[in-house]
Amino acid sequence: MDMTTAEATSETAQERKAPGRPRNAQADEAILDAVLDLLAEGSSAAAVSIEAVAARAGVGKATIYRRWANKDALIMDAIRGMKGPLPEPVGVSVRDDLIMLIKANRSGRAKRYSKVTACLLPEFLRDDNLFDMWQAVMEPRRDVTRRVLRRGVETGELRADLDIELAVLMMTAPSMMHGMLRWAPKVPEEGFAESLVDAFLRGAAAS
Amino acid sequence: MDMTTAEATSETAQERKAPGRPRNAQADEAILDAVLDLLAEGSSAAAVSIEAVAARAGVGKATIYRRWANKDALIMDAIRGMKGPLPEPVGVSVRDDLIMLIKANRSGRAKRYSKVTACLLPEFLRDDNLFDMWQAVMEPRRDVTRRVLRRGVETGELRADLDIELAVLMMTAPSMMHGMLRWAPKVPEEGFAESLVDAFLRGAAAS
Repeated sequence: MDMTTAEATSETAQERKAPGRPRNAQADEAILDAVLDLLAEGSSAAAVSIEAVAARAGVGKATIYRRWANKDALIMDAIRGMKGPLPEPVGVSVRDDLIMLIKANRSGRAKRYSKVTACLLPEFLRDDNLFDMWQAVMEPRRDVTRRVLRRGVETGELRADLDIELAVLMMTAPSMMHGMLRWAPKVPEEGFAESLVDAFLRGAAAS
Repeated sequence: MDMTTAEATSETAQERKAPGRPRNAQADEAILDAVLDLLAEGSSAAAVSIEAVAARAGVGKATIYRRWANKDALIMDAIRGMKGPLPEPVGVSVRDDLIMLIKANRSGRAKRYSKVTACLLPEFLRDDNLFDMWQAVMEPRRDVTRRVLRRGVETGELRADLDIELAVLMMTAPSMMHGMLRWAPKVPEEGFAESLVDAFLRGAAAS
């Protein structure tokens, strides 16, 4: 994933170009959507070209180069935008907050997310840089889940000896796999978040 | 993924060619290993060619065509072989059997499994036929987990209202994601299966 212009080398990879020019929000959205479409269809990140994105979005290549320093920055903006703003837990019930966090990762535009992630997985094995950038997008989201779990331990809702990192994995992996490997209808989409959180909270052992 | 010879069309996709010729186990293993190597490196299933497999395995293309009817059959045999024989639960303790099943999916040659699966995920989105074949390999393994869980419900080790399908997802997805998305060392490899099963059994809620 190379810099596309000499000018680009003077900017950090994840920064958009300087403000000042009027932004065309509609074109931005079409461009970011085009990136996600290409990834969700199974294009590798390496195969996503500025040409293909421009053609899909119906804009000129120059429009893209004016807004993003390079392809890395464009792909990361697309992933970041797909995930939407960070969800905000209400802070009353750990159960309710965990359900909300799982639903936030499964609803609306986030539905494309598991497809895009699936298509990026082979890239992650080959490209540590891309994997690190993706982790940088995911980590603040995992932090929200960590905070909810830690609060639950503090308030006594959750067991004192809870392994927080393992719990984050248990609250995220089944949801991702459910989408990627088509577990519906064996595990129905309807009520999925509630069922998973309740199973996680109460445990499988007979009491 | 097309038939490679006219003769092949008379055989089912997942059958090896008829016995009778002496089998060369060493060449077979080199060929299947070559397929897994190519997939684990990020090749798409579509991009895996008989030529590339032959070159990697150090055999002639004819050696491959003599043993496998087509590329589908070759890839499925490679995936099937990687998973090894079906694990056999001891049947005394549900906890012990679940730990054994998770370890069976993480040890030895199965280590390549999450990489190969990761590289096949984009294909699954594009190719229902390949996804169905992969499911046909996975389903008997999930059945082993289902039987262990059902037995636990019958013996009273597990709660009577356990959602078996959700439980299968909870006992498989975290393990896959742990490898694919590099959760170690946040969740250490050492003791992973035991920690996951115990967290699943006892639940996160304070009692």
